[in-house]
Amino acid sequence: MTTQALIDTHRATLEKALTAIETREYWSPYPESPRAYGEDAAAQGEAAFKARLGNPFQLDQPSTGMMDVAEYSPYGIDLGVSYPTPDIDQLIDAAQTAMNTWSRASADTRAAVCLEILDRLSKQSFEMAHAVMHTTGQAFMMAFQAGSPHALDRALEAVAYGYREMTRVPTSMRWEKPQGKRDPLVIDKEWHVRPQGVEVTIGVSTFPTWNGYPGIMASLVTGNASIIKPHPGTILPLAIFVETARAVLGEAEFDPNLVMLAVDTPDAPIAKDLVLNENVKLVDFTGGSAFGGWLENNVPQARVFTEKSGVNSVIIDSVPDLKGIMRNLTVSTSLYSGQMCTTPQNIFIPRDGITVGDDHVTFDEVVDAYTGGLAGLLGDDERASDILGSIKGDDTLGRIDDAASGGNVLLESRTVTNPTFEGATVRTPVVVGVDAVDEDAYMREMFGPVVFVVATDSTEHSLQLAERSALEHGALTWLVYSTDPDVIDSAVDSAINAGVSVAFNLEGGLYVNQSAAFSDFHATGANPAGNASLTDPAFVANRFRLVGVRKPVLS
Amino acid sequence: MTTQALIDTHRATLEKALTAIETREYWSPYPESPRAYGEDAAAQGEAAFKARLGNPFQLDQPSTGMMDVAEYSPYGIDLGVSYPTPDIDQLIDAAQTAMNTWSRASADTRAAVCLEILDRLSKQSFEMAHAVMHTTGQAFMMAFQAGSPHALDRALEAVAYGYREMTRVPTSMRWEKPQGKRDPLVIDKEWHVRPQGVEVTIGVSTFPTWNGYPGIMASLVTGNASIIKPHPGTILPLAIFVETARAVLGEAEFDPNLVMLAVDTPDAPIAKDLVLNENVKLVDFTGGSAFGGWLENNVPQARVFTEKSGVNSVIIDSVPDLKGIMRNLTVSTSLYSGQMCTTPQNIFIPRDGITVGDDHVTFDEVVDAYTGGLAGLLGDDERASDILGSIKGDDTLGRIDDAASGGNVLLESRTVTNPTFEGATVRTPVVVGVDAVDEDAYMREMFGPVVFVVATDSTEHSLQLAERSALEHGALTWLVYSTDPDVIDSAVDSAINAGVSVAFNLEGGLYVNQSAAFSDFHATGANPAGNASLTDPAFVANRFRLVGVRKPVLS
Repeated sequence: MTTQALIDTHRATLEKALTAIETREYWSPYPESPRAYGEDAAAQGEAAFKARLGNPFQLDQPSTGMMDVAEYSPYGIDLGVSYPTPDIDQLIDAAQTAMNTWSRASADTRAAVCLEILDRLSKQSFEMAHAVMHTTGQAFMMAFQAGSPHALDRALEAVAYGYREMTRVPTSMRWEKPQGKRDPLVIDKEWHVRPQGVEVTIGVSTFPTWNGYPGIMASLVTGNASIIKPHPGTILPLAIFVETARAVLGEAEFDPNLVMLAVDTPDAPIAKDLVLNENVKLVDFTGGSAFGGWLENNVPQARVFTEKSGVNSVIIDSVPDLKGIMRNLTVSTSLYSGQMCTTPQNIFIPRDGITVGDDHVTFDEVVDAYTGGLAGLLGDDERASDILGSIKGDDTLGRIDDAASGGNVLLESRTVTNPTFEGATVRTPVVVGVDAVDEDAYMREMFGPVVFVVATDSTEHSLQLAERSALEHGALTWLVYSTDPDVIDSAVDSAINAGVSVAFNLEGGLYVNQSAAFSDFHATGANPAGNASLTDPAFVANRFRLVGVRKPVLS
Repeated sequence: MTTQALIDTHRATLEKALTAIETREYWSPYPESPRAYGEDAAAQGEAAFKARLGNPFQLDQPSTGMMDVAEYSPYGIDLGVSYPTPDIDQLIDAAQTAMNTWSRASADTRAAVCLEILDRLSKQSFEMAHAVMHTTGQAFMMAFQAGSPHALDRALEAVAYGYREMTRVPTSMRWEKPQGKRDPLVIDKEWHVRPQGVEVTIGVSTFPTWNGYPGIMASLVTGNASIIKPHPGTILPLAIFVETARAVLGEAEFDPNLVMLAVDTPDAPIAKDLVLNENVKLVDFTGGSAFGGWLENNVPQARVFTEKSGVNSVIIDSVPDLKGIMRNLTVSTSLYSGQMCTTPQNIFIPRDGITVGDDHVTFDEVVDAYTGGLAGLLGDDERASDILGSIKGDDTLGRIDDAASGGNVLLESRTVTNPTFEGATVRTPVVVGVDAVDEDAYMREMFGPVVFVVATDSTEHSLQLAERSALEHGALTWLVYSTDPDVIDSAVDSAINAGVSVAFNLEGGLYVNQSAAFSDFHATGANPAGNASLTDPAFVANRFRLVGVRKPVLS
């Protein structure tokens, strides 16, 4: 396809995305139902995934051979994929060279090429679903939706933001300043987009595409090149992305080295060497707070965008009935075994109980409704496996025992047998009761299937604790249950102070863990859970700069 | 005035500003002609300025008494103003308290209050002109225009950018996601602006209002509080700003401590203590590269916006005639004795000469046209004083001798007697000839009345040197003279690489030093001359964050 044909093909989608980020209304061009992809898609995608296993993942990019990695599946299957061995200097040189033509292309051209990449990836949704499932431990349906269509939504959103920022200033115009009786000053002006430089994305083990695409696409559309260093345990999804992106770039007659993969192993990490290279000007990171914090403070030559971890809170004040909220809360605390950065961890309940409808209900009754609901939801192994997925990482397994030792175990973690993958590591959440004063136990991130029920003096006290916890340890989400308008106002005020998105009284099929591209911002960037938000203008505005040109009008 | 009345009063101006930053067309609501301010304005303004001299500058803000400072006038008059002694902890506490109500006000309210502040300042334009003139050394007309109307343009531009960013997301909307045959998911959403926290502006000695207002106003309009630490030698202009801003804030029933002054002296600087306070989240700096670079690398808890220094270049390739360009170039290299960060410093000319019209002209002839033009322009003391202003700082005086020792003096610096202020320090620029290989001499910033004429191998060589100089030492402006379209294209390409705004073939009354608010971006943020641009979306987008609220639809 010619560049103009690509622009024409994708113009309508881009325009809809531009509208959606203004109105924040629901919209997605990538179907979230697997059925929408055609009869053969499932089998073809699975076959494509299986064909990757045990084989070298060849990418025609600068490298010094192939290397074995520490990638592994929480479902216990053998992956055995090897990847190109990176040479950092080579990669960065190649990325800089690749930017020469890309950075001078028009915003329309770059956006169209990015949208073509996303379209191709959409066609690979089943393959990507298996890749995400078997590297992250997500259950298949989540891996399908979050790994492909929802990730592509977030990618397209980032392209739209980048495009909108670049095109807000006219590419050229004539400027006239009146000079009273004298002739006006007249000059022609142009503005050119100048990318910042090489971007490095440091991927996360749990949602490599959903969290990775926005930084990559925001960088690409604004003219930069992207070097992608996946989590050493979760490589394949981003490798597939790199392969597809390179193919599309090459077909569009740009240098494929605009997108390159740089794998490493836990024994020989390369992230610091990569980001400290003086030609790296943008870094996008999703992962733990320790390395995220290091990046924020130690990479002065680059703009650093982080999504780290946090301690998310539920505040239960008053509800119309317990069943409705527990249907929602048990799911949101179970999905993917709490391995979402948006999963609630601490449930704050006044120790004197709460109002339910017209009745007073004790603290223990609320807890029983929750633990009973959770046990019921996850009682069947097959259903539990579909909700919980598998656990990625021994650290997460270890935290189940660690959490249990810090308080009163209200519901034991149960080992679940996955009916399809016998090697899968599946555990139901442990629910631990603590008193508000035991801050050491609960006021820390316990990533994984760990829920603390915290007994507080009052809802006001709950909000104070949640606010302080967010400001000190970060938080991405709050979920507040209250029938009292004053409490709701007060919770909104607390949430603004804490820089945390807050949802109220969720009972139906919308979970606090979920954020919708084009409408919800993921993270606020206003507390230690991260310094950036997916996606807002601040996420894209500094990935390029504008260079002004003034030329006298030719007479 | 009520808040609504303020909003109504300023709505039309805000809307025009919002249009201007889109179209980039010429526009200004603050007249740049002193005659536009009424018959009595000049005398009243001068009287107001004189009434300040020798007196304490009282501000009803937290302080521990009044202090003497090291402020002084390059025109040699006694200033003798004392200012409130700052206590950093007190100031930051007061700023945080003041944000409680301000941060919850609407974007419309905050913008209207900001515009009222600018309106009041506009009425003080003559007073401000004298304050700027006598602290910075600018000649009166520049002090009037750059100190008040042009600075207010830049302030309003920043307000408009901040307002536009805050209002791009609806404050509330209803979100509906189709669910096939089932009922759609429906939820009400709101977004709230959350300011980042306390901002600190570190002022510059030369253009305290023009460079200071954008960061202050961008911070205020997005809900933050501003603590302003002026340059120790140039305090009065920003003190007047603080006084006026506090008065307007108080009248609008906000806490005046949203804007506070924090003065210091060269012997006891407080900038580091201020910016390292954990509650300071935004820092705006204009000044030298050493401290600017320190701020960029050592204040991890804050977003830091810098405008530092640079080495600006002129590239002479070919011209229709020499007189036209020299009329322009001699003025741009003389204005305010080269103490503008946009003043050209290095003039690159091929050693084999250039094409002028249909003729070949030697290097020496081009140099003679420049030095002859400069000597003519500045031959009369009164006219020279009006163009040169006075020199602020012994360092700048010292550089005249320093520069002369590094090459072949083509035009000596001349001491000028100011006809009105006998104590004024006025020097014409020294013009020094160097060869391109003598990089130590010219490839460094020599802030002040110093011009190097650099003999190069060719225009291509000139562009290479200018590009490398910009990338290594920073640059804000290039001025290129060429009649060759290929050279112009090549220069634009170099300018994009270097991240420098470039103007071509200026001959008339528009000088490369000048940038127009609402149209030209001041600095690109893409080279060591600074990491920010006045004003683009990146300058405002990260001064606040958005907090999302989701509430089920009440049935």
